[in-house]
Amino acid sequence: MVQLGPNRYGKAETHVVHVARGGAPDGGDLVTDRTVSTSLSGELAATHLTGDNSAVLATDTQKNTAFVFAKTLGAVPAEAYALALAEHFVSTQQPITRARVHVAEASWTRSGAHSFCRSGAATRTTTVVLDADLGASVVSGVEDLVVLNTTNSEFWGFPRDEYTTLAETKDRILATEVSARWRYRGVDVEWTDAYGAARAALADAFADTYSYSLQQTLFAIGTRIVESVPDICEVRLALPNKHHFLVDLAPFGLSNDNEVYWAADRPYGLIEGTVLADDAPPEGLAWV
Amino acid sequence: MVQLGPNRYGKAETHVVHVARGGAPDGGDLVTDRTVSTSLSGELAATHLTGDNSAVLATDTQKNTAFVFAKTLGAVPAEAYALALAEHFVSTQQPITRARVHVAEASWTRSGAHSFCRSGAATRTTTVVLDADLGASVVSGVEDLVVLNTTNSEFWGFPRDEYTTLAETKDRILATEVSARWRYRGVDVEWTDAYGAARAALADAFADTYSYSLQQTLFAIGTRIVESVPDICEVRLALPNKHHFLVDLAPFGLSNDNEVYWAADRPYGLIEGTVLADDAPPEGLAWV
Amino acid sequence: MVQLGPNRYGKAETHVVHVARGGAPDGGDLVTDRTVSTSLSGELAATHLTGDNSAVLATDTQKNTAFVFAKTLGAVPAEAYALALAEHFVSTQQPITRARVHVAEASWTRSGAHSFCRSGAATRTTTVVLDADLGASVVSGVEDLVVLNTTNSEFWGFPRDEYTTLAETKDRILATEVSARWRYRGVDVEWTDAYGAARAALADAFADTYSYSLQQTLFAIGTRIVESVPDICEVRLALPNKHHFLVDLAPFGLSNDNEVYWAADRPYGLIEGTVLADDAPPEGLAWV
Amino acid sequence: MVQLGPNRYGKAETHVVHVARGGAPDGGDLVTDRTVSTSLSGELAATHLTGDNSAVLATDTQKNTAFVFAKTLGAVPAEAYALALAEHFVSTQQPITRARVHVAEASWTRSGAHSFCRSGAATRTTTVVLDADLGASVVSGVEDLVVLNTTNSEFWGFPRDEYTTLAETKDRILATEVSARWRYRGVDVEWTDAYGAARAALADAFADTYSYSLQQTLFAIGTRIVESVPDICEVRLALPNKHHFLVDLAPFGLSNDNEVYWAADRPYGLIEGTVLADDAPPEGLAWV
Repeated sequence: MVQLGPNRYGKAETHVVHVARGGAPDGGDLVTDRTVSTSLSGELAATHLTGDNSAVLATDTQKNTAFVFAKTLGAVPAEAYALALAEHFVSTQQPITRARVHVAEASWTRSGAHSFCRSGAATRTTTVVLDADLGASVVSGVEDLVVLNTTNSEFWGFPRDEYTTLAETKDRILATEVSARWRYRGVDVEWTDAYGAARAALADAFADTYSYSLQQTLFAIGTRIVESVPDICEVRLALPNKHHFLVDLAPFGLSNDNEVYWAADRPYGLIEGTVLADDAPPEGLAWV
Repeated sequence: MVQLGPNRYGKAETHVVHVARGGAPDGGDLVTDRTVSTSLSGELAATHLTGDNSAVLATDTQKNTAFVFAKTLGAVPAEAYALALAEHFVSTQQPITRARVHVAEASWTRSGAHSFCRSGAATRTTTVVLDADLGASVVSGVEDLVVLNTTNSEFWGFPRDEYTTLAETKDRILATEVSARWRYRGVDVEWTDAYGAARAALADAFADTYSYSLQQTLFAIGTRIVESVPDICEVRLALPNKHHFLVDLAPFGLSNDNEVYWAADRPYGLIEGTVLADDAPPEGLAWV
Repeated sequence: MVQLGPNRYGKAETHVVHVARGGAPDGGDLVTDRTVSTSLSGELAATHLTGDNSAVLATDTQKNTAFVFAKTLGAVPAEAYALALAEHFVSTQQPITRARVHVAEASWTRSGAHSFCRSGAATRTTTVVLDADLGASVVSGVEDLVVLNTTNSEFWGFPRDEYTTLAETKDRILATEVSARWRYRGVDVEWTDAYGAARAALADAFADTYSYSLQQTLFAIGTRIVESVPDICEVRLALPNKHHFLVDLAPFGLSNDNEVYWAADRPYGLIEGTVLADDAPPEGLAWV
Repeated sequence: MVQLGPNRYGKAETHVVHVARGGAPDGGDLVTDRTVSTSLSGELAATHLTGDNSAVLATDTQKNTAFVFAKTLGAVPAEAYALALAEHFVSTQQPITRARVHVAEASWTRSGAHSFCRSGAATRTTTVVLDADLGASVVSGVEDLVVLNTTNSEFWGFPRDEYTTLAETKDRILATEVSARWRYRGVDVEWTDAYGAARAALADAFADTYSYSLQQTLFAIGTRIVESVPDICEVRLALPNKHHFLVDLAPFGLSNDNEVYWAADRPYGLIEGTVLADDAPPEGLAWV
């Protein structure tokens, strides 16, 4: 005999673009570009077991709602938008007891009163989970942020087993594509300020850390974010090591004094870790 | 003050291809094509806090080991390969107390004694987690499997709130790209037989189920797998609803009796759920 | 002073799925899955110079037309569909003197009366160019076809300049992802038969050729297609060399007798070439 | 009987990263990040017909050479690097009579003396073709540049045939991902200045043009580049129309005064065109 376990359903990747006409301080426009994914949980056994959909708010309706809230809320921060959307689903649909809203926000740079250029440098993310019983949690972060230090990175002192061939190095390139998510202590936060502060802490910690391992850099980044932004109690990072291999030019009679590298694709190191404030509250449903 | 939370590190996406020359029953070759990701956990605080790497088996070494085990084990099933690799790391590296090994296996079809054509129809996956204290778990599955029913799918009876515009339908295309993972009860399994049986159960359940919701289809698939393969105690599925919208041809004086569809990319419905055997053992670390 | 040069415009990647209900010989359904791109040329200076759109059949209309023709033509071969669509645009829009229609067709395998599984093994393509003065040309082909020979491939005898370090080999894996396009002599062709014959010739030539270079394999494939299918007068191939590097296991005390390979992503060799029948008619606009 | 037609071969996507230590005016480092693809043509019949590789400079050697020239040339502009590489192949390999070198350059922003953040906003490209008889041509450009105007775009006055349903609009979002390539008149150019000027002209023309069609915008961009940069004689543009559809909020009792849009993926309009200086020299092999 079988039973239904945890489940959720929703509409993924609704690409919502909002234009606040004249919304910039100088009278120019503001563009808010969000890819929104919602998913709902609750008393949903019936649709799984018999196809009775009376509790299933259609994913098409969830999409419509994402557009409607963009209209009614305007250019609020992603976290506020996601909280409102989640609250709406849980408060208006009796069988729905939990909503998860994920937003990936692309940034655009103004280049005229009405003209914009998409900045590919990073994607701002937020994930809100709102549960009827357990309340709301907010995890925000950044993706697609590629950073590189040309020096100030060593890697040595690692164990040498029978399968180890890697040479030790006292000077290497350290590059990674940062995927960071940070958990807020609550929902009463100046979201845009907090995002900016976390983002700056991240970049600064990467640039400032003299690194003996990418793990050390990871911990430095997480620590800097937690210590710089009091509203943040936990940071989770996934840092692929974008290997830059020094090319052996000796066969060609040339030296290579840390000048020319081959940037490889795969395989890659992958360093994942968590940094928590000592007084971080329990995570609850934040990371589901 | 901050502390280090859960962490792991490893080498991702080492693409290992093994040729068993003359390994097929008819004397032809066998190709095993695996993309292997390993990650290790344990007493790794030092590298995070000070950059002391004495416990950090280099990710380059993990890559080497993935190649070595392909050589020494040959064409064993992915699950056996992953278990052996995980066991190696945990048993030989004192500070390493847990290993996670993920394998994505592409399939190739023989077209001659030494010739092969890659079959893009599906990717076989396995994830082994082996913990020094808690033992081993094996989760296998399939990805990139796109299936479609031209009929026998309805969707109606869903709630209509103020943002609902979707029409009910008694006949639609149902298409999805299956991402399935199933948990085994133990490690003493005929892996290839079990994979084949689960894969067949999945396909049959999709084809056979007259569906009133993709959730219902999900539950039918999970149930069929659990009931068909006694070694499997749990199935987790993520089913994107690959919407096929009936094109309105009325403006052109034409009917569209479920003939012509627009296959949309985004947004898409996303249905996620779990089916468990009633006597499934605790999941432990299987899904980390 | 500047002038307008060659130009065209259209709607790209309209994903059209057609179901022929009961269209299979056994009464099952047929699914035709095409991603259609149309583009039009002609007297289009006005829209470029002044924004006068009186000659610009909207790309939205082109999309509608792609759906309408799927309805009216049903499950005809991609080449017939593309020819009809191109003919429609050129014959009905006076300023439009040329149409290019590209179709990428995914294949689905029946797994029940109404059930299908997408076969990822290859994509069938066709490109029709129809010019009011110069008539029609048809180029068809295949993409996403990955093939591999485990042996019967050598590479040696190449020049060794000051930057050459590659060792010669008498036995290597040869793998490539075939991108093939073949030009038909005319438009009175049994398209599906010709496609099948070309596809089989391609696969057979790859498997049968004992290869001293991927160029040699390319020429063998092109030759086999031209010689096997009289309606085809030219073949263009792009063959990335999907390098499989033999892993050096000597540091671990192991031999590697062509067993274990690392399948690399980038960089990759790329071999491009053309094979023509001696009596191939001029290419005209076939490849624009 | 068949014959060998046009052909070429080479190494694609060698990812070369060069660090000029202390190369910045302020003593910081410079990073040059290039993905380099080379391909060679000439007397290559033998390898196709018999597998005789005596004329085939190995693609592995081409890769090595790409690294060596990064070392010896340092941080020269991409065009100079590509010209030197092409010249090397043609001048040193007797059977090789033509080389094509393509470079895609990612940009990095300094964030510290040794720290960088990859700017995803655009990729700089160059393609050099150097033929022993016909000399050299240089085509440079930009990719991955996404721009958007929130207004100042109309689309109306297009023909309405039986398949036209699109409404006319006097105010829409205009967004595109620019793919631009411009041909230089010669090889004696201040490459970096010219790139900067062309890039600025492109952005300005997009922002400044009140547009009645994307074709008009395309022509305005091409014209502005040609007129701003005397060294450039021709521009080719491919502009996908990244449709932003105004969401119909009327069913929800809400207006949508050009505020909320759905950004669609596919299908998309695709506008391609060329703008030439009246005195542009013949294109020769520039675009092969």
